[in-house]
Amino acid sequence: MKLSRLGEFGLIEKIRRRTPAGRGVRIGIGDDAASVENRGDSSLITADLLIEGRHFDLRWTSLRDLGHKALAVNLSDIAAMGGIPDYVILSLGIPAHFDSEDIGAFYRGFEKLAAEYSVALVGGDTNAAEKLIISVCVIGHSSAKPVERRGAKAGDDIYVTGTLGDAALGLKLLRRVRRNSTRKGQRAMMLLARHHRPTPRLAAGALLAKKKLATAMIDISDGLLQDLGHICRASAIGATIEVERLPLSPAYRALAGKQRSHALSGGEDYELLFCARRQNRAQLENLSIRAQVAITRIGACVPADRGIVVLDPSGKALPMRVQGHDHFKKTRLSI
Amino acid sequence: MKLSRLGEFGLIEKIRRRTPAGRGVRIGIGDDAASVENRGDSSLITADLLIEGRHFDLRWTSLRDLGHKALAVNLSDIAAMGGIPDYVILSLGIPAHFDSEDIGAFYRGFEKLAAEYSVALVGGDTNAAEKLIISVCVIGHSSAKPVERRGAKAGDDIYVTGTLGDAALGLKLLRRVRRNSTRKGQRAMMLLARHHRPTPRLAAGALLAKKKLATAMIDISDGLLQDLGHICRASAIGATIEVERLPLSPAYRALAGKQRSHALSGGEDYELLFCARRQNRAQLENLSIRAQVAITRIGACVPADRGIVVLDPSGKALPMRVQGHDHFKKTRLSI
Repeated sequence: MKLSRLGEFGLIEKIRRRTPAGRGVRIGIGDDAASVENRGDSSLITADLLIEGRHFDLRWTSLRDLGHKALAVNLSDIAAMGGIPDYVILSLGIPAHFDSEDIGAFYRGFEKLAAEYSVALVGGDTNAAEKLIISVCVIGHSSAKPVERRGAKAGDDIYVTGTLGDAALGLKLLRRVRRNSTRKGQRAMMLLARHHRPTPRLAAGALLAKKKLATAMIDISDGLLQDLGHICRASAIGATIEVERLPLSPAYRALAGKQRSHALSGGEDYELLFCARRQNRAQLENLSIRAQVAITRIGACVPADRGIVVLDPSGKALPMRVQGHDHFKKTRLSI
Repeated sequence: MKLSRLGEFGLIEKIRRRTPAGRGVRIGIGDDAASVENRGDSSLITADLLIEGRHFDLRWTSLRDLGHKALAVNLSDIAAMGGIPDYVILSLGIPAHFDSEDIGAFYRGFEKLAAEYSVALVGGDTNAAEKLIISVCVIGHSSAKPVERRGAKAGDDIYVTGTLGDAALGLKLLRRVRRNSTRKGQRAMMLLARHHRPTPRLAAGALLAKKKLATAMIDISDGLLQDLGHICRASAIGATIEVERLPLSPAYRALAGKQRSHALSGGEDYELLFCARRQNRAQLENLSIRAQVAITRIGACVPADRGIVVLDPSGKALPMRVQGHDHFKKTRLSI
């Protein structure tokens, strides 16, 4: 079967089915990170492969930002398990026209973020390549039980951290807006910064796991609705999302008008999407303060047969097709 | 500085210097695998990035063999630390013309080897790409102290496992010899099999570490002399190699004649190269039997100022330039 028909998630499912559950594997293929046993403790492992022309375009992104983002997207996966990152492996395929200054800029972005979260770069591999290839593997741990995608129940609330849609709107404006000092230009630069330098929500993720408040969790990389779909499938639930509850930045509101498609399915937010029992609403407010990030209730889990529904302010279902990113179904330049 | 001038090892050294030693990092950048602390134990981590057109050519290698090799080269790095592999992460960049049968063939080769050594595939990332990209990260452990490249002393013996030069000679013959039933054709196929499906020397590596017999160790991926150079630099020693002691397969002897260049600097042997105290010669013979692999003494460590010298049977130094593989200095198709 052609991969474009099977799709990324079909392929992952095929690989998952044929892979035997190994000794010591607590969470295998199909979640944000794997969890493996390590002397009674959980080690978390996650990896991302970024390819020039597929995931980023060096005309629109600086190598320093790229270094930041390559690490940030992996840290976000660790955050989505409620884990703490410890070590990182970085392998690069480097085009011939790069010089050591280019590589230095990439490492500066990478290392600044690594230092911020005390993640140690311990190894990797370097090669010549036609286009820049970045392969990152992060190893972390979880002192609490890692939070999986499965575990949400009908009746649970649905939350997100931060604001949604900024990165996707930033990407859209990328080629249109030049750096300038107008109000609009400043707002666009703010959105772009969210696109280039996402913040992994590690404190929020680790606190949610520690306090056992999240029943299911994922980070939003492919768009809210698509990633919510992963939680729904894994937890065997449906979901209703109230569109007027979506947390939006002032810059998003100013530049997107009434448009909510970037917030609903734009992707690359790298915010946490999680479910929690209704009785824990007050605790989640406290957690938001401790983790220094907004946590917004955007909807509720419902029985599986109701599917995923987005409600407008009057409570009417919006016509929606779950959109998002599939690496084999379309090409999208994202960084 | 241009990377072609800096070179692969210059770049790695630059990265190593600017990377702070992280908390819990026992062995960082610059050995076969990193060793990190994990609740008092050592975890080993290694990664390799293989790129179509750089490391392999799909005209000459089957996807099944490629699956085997992509894992084998990483297991070989774990073997070179004396470790035991536990988990593997596999990320793929997949060209549009691939179908799910192609991916299936790759996974069959990968999984057969993984099952043989009880390594569990726990995750990864899949993407569309123009050319096939394979990124593998293996995590293992060591119950003994991992064997580093540093630690050899002048007076130590130098050993290798298995036979040398088969893979490099196989590669050379690859385009010339067609599968046929002549004696020569069969020998060439044997060498090719060594090229396509290297055997990671895990039992030998783990026993050497456990018995504390190896003072320094590396796996031979870039050629005997180049990888010996890494041990010499890390251990601050020189080395003399006796060319008539090099272990050669019957197929190599039959097809290479008196040529020893493939055995000395051909690369991709994935045999272990290690140093050991002279008084342990008898113990190494026993270990060879237990690990079911030939272990051959090929030379001795000498003071650093004598450099690396290859001696002919009469004890005369052969004119030698240490050759081997540098990813930024030349292009070599290897699989």
